[in-house]
Amino acid sequence: MPVPTAKETFVDVLIIGAGPAGVMCANALARAGVNVKIVDKRAASVLAGQADGIQPRTIEVFQSYGLAERLLREGNQMHMVAFYNPSPDGGLERTGRAADAPAPTARYPYKITLHQGAIEQIFLDSMAQEDLRVDRETVPISIKVTGDEAELRDSQAHAVTVVLQHLDAEPGADTEVVRAKYVLGSDGAHSWVRKTFGITMDGEQTNFVWGVVDVVPDTDFPDIRNRCAIHSHNGSCMVVPREGDKVRLYVQLAGASDAVDPATGRIDRSRIGPHELMQVAKKTFAPYRIDADTFDWWTIYIIGQRVASKFSVNERVFIAGDACHTHSPKAGQGMNASMNDTHNLAWKLAYVLRGWSDLSLLKTYELERRKYAQELINFDKDFSALFSGKPRTKDNQEGVSHEQFLEAFNAYGGFTSGTNVHYPPSAIVNEAHQQLARNLVIGERMLPHVFICAADARPFDIQDFLPADTRFKVLVFLGDVGNRQQLARVHRFAEDVASSKAFYRKFGGDDPAKVFDIVSIGSGRKHEVNYTDVPLPLRTHWSKVLLDDTDMFDRCGGGGYDKYGIDPLAGAIVVVRPDGYVGAVSSFEDLTAIEGYFAGFLTAH
Amino acid sequence: MPVPTAKETFVDVLIIGAGPAGVMCANALARAGVNVKIVDKRAASVLAGQADGIQPRTIEVFQSYGLAERLLREGNQMHMVAFYNPSPDGGLERTGRAADAPAPTARYPYKITLHQGAIEQIFLDSMAQEDLRVDRETVPISIKVTGDEAELRDSQAHAVTVVLQHLDAEPGADTEVVRAKYVLGSDGAHSWVRKTFGITMDGEQTNFVWGVVDVVPDTDFPDIRNRCAIHSHNGSCMVVPREGDKVRLYVQLAGASDAVDPATGRIDRSRIGPHELMQVAKKTFAPYRIDADTFDWWTIYIIGQRVASKFSVNERVFIAGDACHTHSPKAGQGMNASMNDTHNLAWKLAYVLRGWSDLSLLKTYELERRKYAQELINFDKDFSALFSGKPRTKDNQEGVSHEQFLEAFNAYGGFTSGTNVHYPPSAIVNEAHQQLARNLVIGERMLPHVFICAADARPFDIQDFLPADTRFKVLVFLGDVGNRQQLARVHRFAEDVASSKAFYRKFGGDDPAKVFDIVSIGSGRKHEVNYTDVPLPLRTHWSKVLLDDTDMFDRCGGGGYDKYGIDPLAGAIVVVRPDGYVGAVSSFEDLTAIEGYFAGFLTAH
Repeated sequence: MPVPTAKETFVDVLIIGAGPAGVMCANALARAGVNVKIVDKRAASVLAGQADGIQPRTIEVFQSYGLAERLLREGNQMHMVAFYNPSPDGGLERTGRAADAPAPTARYPYKITLHQGAIEQIFLDSMAQEDLRVDRETVPISIKVTGDEAELRDSQAHAVTVVLQHLDAEPGADTEVVRAKYVLGSDGAHSWVRKTFGITMDGEQTNFVWGVVDVVPDTDFPDIRNRCAIHSHNGSCMVVPREGDKVRLYVQLAGASDAVDPATGRIDRSRIGPHELMQVAKKTFAPYRIDADTFDWWTIYIIGQRVASKFSVNERVFIAGDACHTHSPKAGQGMNASMNDTHNLAWKLAYVLRGWSDLSLLKTYELERRKYAQELINFDKDFSALFSGKPRTKDNQEGVSHEQFLEAFNAYGGFTSGTNVHYPPSAIVNEAHQQLARNLVIGERMLPHVFICAADARPFDIQDFLPADTRFKVLVFLGDVGNRQQLARVHRFAEDVASSKAFYRKFGGDDPAKVFDIVSIGSGRKHEVNYTDVPLPLRTHWSKVLLDDTDMFDRCGGGGYDKYGIDPLAGAIVVVRPDGYVGAVSSFEDLTAIEGYFAGFLTAH
Repeated sequence: MPVPTAKETFVDVLIIGAGPAGVMCANALARAGVNVKIVDKRAASVLAGQADGIQPRTIEVFQSYGLAERLLREGNQMHMVAFYNPSPDGGLERTGRAADAPAPTARYPYKITLHQGAIEQIFLDSMAQEDLRVDRETVPISIKVTGDEAELRDSQAHAVTVVLQHLDAEPGADTEVVRAKYVLGSDGAHSWVRKTFGITMDGEQTNFVWGVVDVVPDTDFPDIRNRCAIHSHNGSCMVVPREGDKVRLYVQLAGASDAVDPATGRIDRSRIGPHELMQVAKKTFAPYRIDADTFDWWTIYIIGQRVASKFSVNERVFIAGDACHTHSPKAGQGMNASMNDTHNLAWKLAYVLRGWSDLSLLKTYELERRKYAQELINFDKDFSALFSGKPRTKDNQEGVSHEQFLEAFNAYGGFTSGTNVHYPPSAIVNEAHQQLARNLVIGERMLPHVFICAADARPFDIQDFLPADTRFKVLVFLGDVGNRQQLARVHRFAEDVASSKAFYRKFGGDDPAKVFDIVSIGSGRKHEVNYTDVPLPLRTHWSKVLLDDTDMFDRCGGGGYDKYGIDPLAGAIVVVRPDGYVGAVSSFEDLTAIEGYFAGFLTAH
């Protein structure tokens, strides 16, 4: 009897693990027209608990995929944080309230809480529109990157072979050989992909043990719908309000003894349960009352901060999300870091697969995201120590004071909100000419701001013009179009752009609008400017000319040039990457700077 | 052979005509749990053309049904209007630009343009969620209201008999007898229902003949995406930008001769077509160029302003929409007036059908909507005459000047936007105690304004708390909850509300939340107020306590008490009707005023 031949499948990208990092990548690639396969060992998406915090920058990323509307509709918004400290009379006192997302540049200046399954579902539904579904109950059993140098250099070669086992299939017919051009291991903290390639996790564990429990509380605590950092005489607790009437409580366990097996040093879930966690919470909340009958989800964890030593194997296999960084969940970073890893990776894979860029573009993934991951664990170490430390009281003057905590909270605001994440110089981050747009930091995400459409005075956030459609956005800040000299410069620039030698044709070929989207932004007054004055190469559609002015009732808009640090009598060209980050800045007269930027990673047509 | 018996159907409400007025009513009633049947003679909804302008207040109404999101996504927004007049050199000059919806209190300060079929579809899809679909190709052939006095007095009697003919059924099996408690005739300008009951249309025709054509223009006209009133040496034209790249052009035809049959005085569509209309437009636009190859839709009309002499027959049969008012389409009022007619009627029908109110409540429909219709045709006469009149030029000093036109445009802004519609005193509009909330005009729609949720500082527009769910919203403006004396008054009021004799139990029975929704609004600071301080009868859920303060970044909110004219040291109770109109205002100490209001039209339980 002949041995049955395993099914063999050819794909551009195989994604192992359908958690937040995996589905973000799968959705982005499917929408970019890439041939993707995504597998997961779980039979279904998680129904409760797990990660649940979406940071302001991540909401912007959702928006760039057209998915923010649903996220905002389904999730809870956290606008305010409250701080509680021991009161001199032995109870609790509120020492202050503040913005929960201290990131003044955020388009959405708050956080969203929604359980991980609901968030994954947003992506699963979007993927389904592209006919992409997760192969569930499927695990990888072997993975191999070709040793053939020529194949490794060929960006279109199926250089990785993965054998999958379908747990729900008959033995004998349960394996599948996948030949993939690229593989993503988004398979969690215990990543099989990472372990198989022997990638180490660098970092350390702490002794802080925390419990987490999701409840619908019955309470007289006045800040139950705000995020709270409670440091009481009887322990510490963090409150995270959730969708509906749910609340998540993080409680600090008094020493390892409560939950850790002294023999192994590991958490022993038989030693503690949700009722015990609620008992600890009740003591921390006193004199406020908090009760709960049912528990939606619970867990216990020991804080540790670790980062993978590398994020890729030969730019053929990548790891992302919990597979390459683990840390405390308390600042709500985990799911955000994971999704932003693959948001960063997806467009780069699409460019290489289309033959628009060579393999070297993929090196920027580790460069950008590993730097971020290291900053993340450094932050987490500081913040967790502050949070887990004893509060300052009359008897403990060495403890953490409210002022210390608040200072750290605000100092890290831009980082924890995701709005200040900074990518270092590389082929896709060129820091030259920063002075032309002083406040649009090259390597950071494009600052949101409301402009009006010149043709009809309708207000839009500039981020509405930066969808994650894999195109580079060329933002032409025209300057004062009422100024003749400036308008003449704009016309000369338009002629340059239209020439066959310029970047637009050189790297865009016959259909440059596939690679580039040009948006022009003038600085005149809505009562006077005619959008038809903008030369055609810089006006691909009537809706693509914006104006830095208020809407008809001065409710929004205006002051954009000032905010961005652009001189209306100079103007500037700002190149925004497909992931929404500022990649380069140039002047009208220095088109070669833009061409040089694109020549660094795009292939001429 | 026995004569086949026609099918007999019993319904609460039969709606004849599935245009904007019909589907608005059907959707509202279906969601209120009313047994509705809706029929239409057309085989399908309209695909292009027809009415297309949605005014700011109507967007608010869509929002109250949860339908604004889709409307805003699919429609075009008109923010700006431009005025063009003859220039001394014989060409055109722009004399100004202004807000197209001069209604500063509007929540959505612009208009939406979207073709009628797309708007109807929003309601059809919403109705389908309640399992209600339009019986198409169905016409009424007879209608009779019972002559039995007892039956007429019984609000639950099936007092109206309508025989329907199904045009798509076999002869012999094509009639259906519908016994309805109430009937709505929303069957258009040539209303069969209106004619059958011999209701006259009062008013007159004019000699102004206009043509309308929908195109995707190729033009160098700088205001093609704004609404424009163009008065040129060569005629007048109105530009209405539409969804996508479409534009509607209204062109004035030079005298009746072009399109009217001199023998009959009626429009003869063989005399003129879209190409001829475009030729007229081209002359009006000169020296600007405008071309169009294809025509999406076109029509010709003579302006006339008429209102039905009555809107109801014994409070059993009602007419709404074009069936009871016709006027020029140019101010974009028609569809809005129609939908707001039945938005006004639907909750009243629901109350009577539930036995919560007696038949007299239904008299307020004609009272409120006929007054509005008369105001509408008065406005339309003035405005059409101004628009159709010759512009003032060097040679015609008697013509309409730009200043005259702009003045009228702005003066009517609140009316045309729908934000200043005022209903007269009646059982459901009690003008007493206006001074307690000086700027919340009793009889007008509740003013939108952003407040924050006291429990979590999330901003909401107050209108988000006024869904069209048939409930009366009791807005308790608590005043300054940090002031002890004020808080004591609030507590006394809360006790009063909770007592079994108060309106809440008296008219709400065992489940007062079915009839009333209480929302409390304090005036303290977000950093200090504890929502838990608001007494329970005034705090039915943590989300139902608002605060008059800015959000965490001062981007919105604050100043609401001032805007509404409410003294924070007095507070006020504001009763908002299910259709979003302010019905009554009261003080904390005068609960009898509220009780008297509700006793005027609600039945005690």
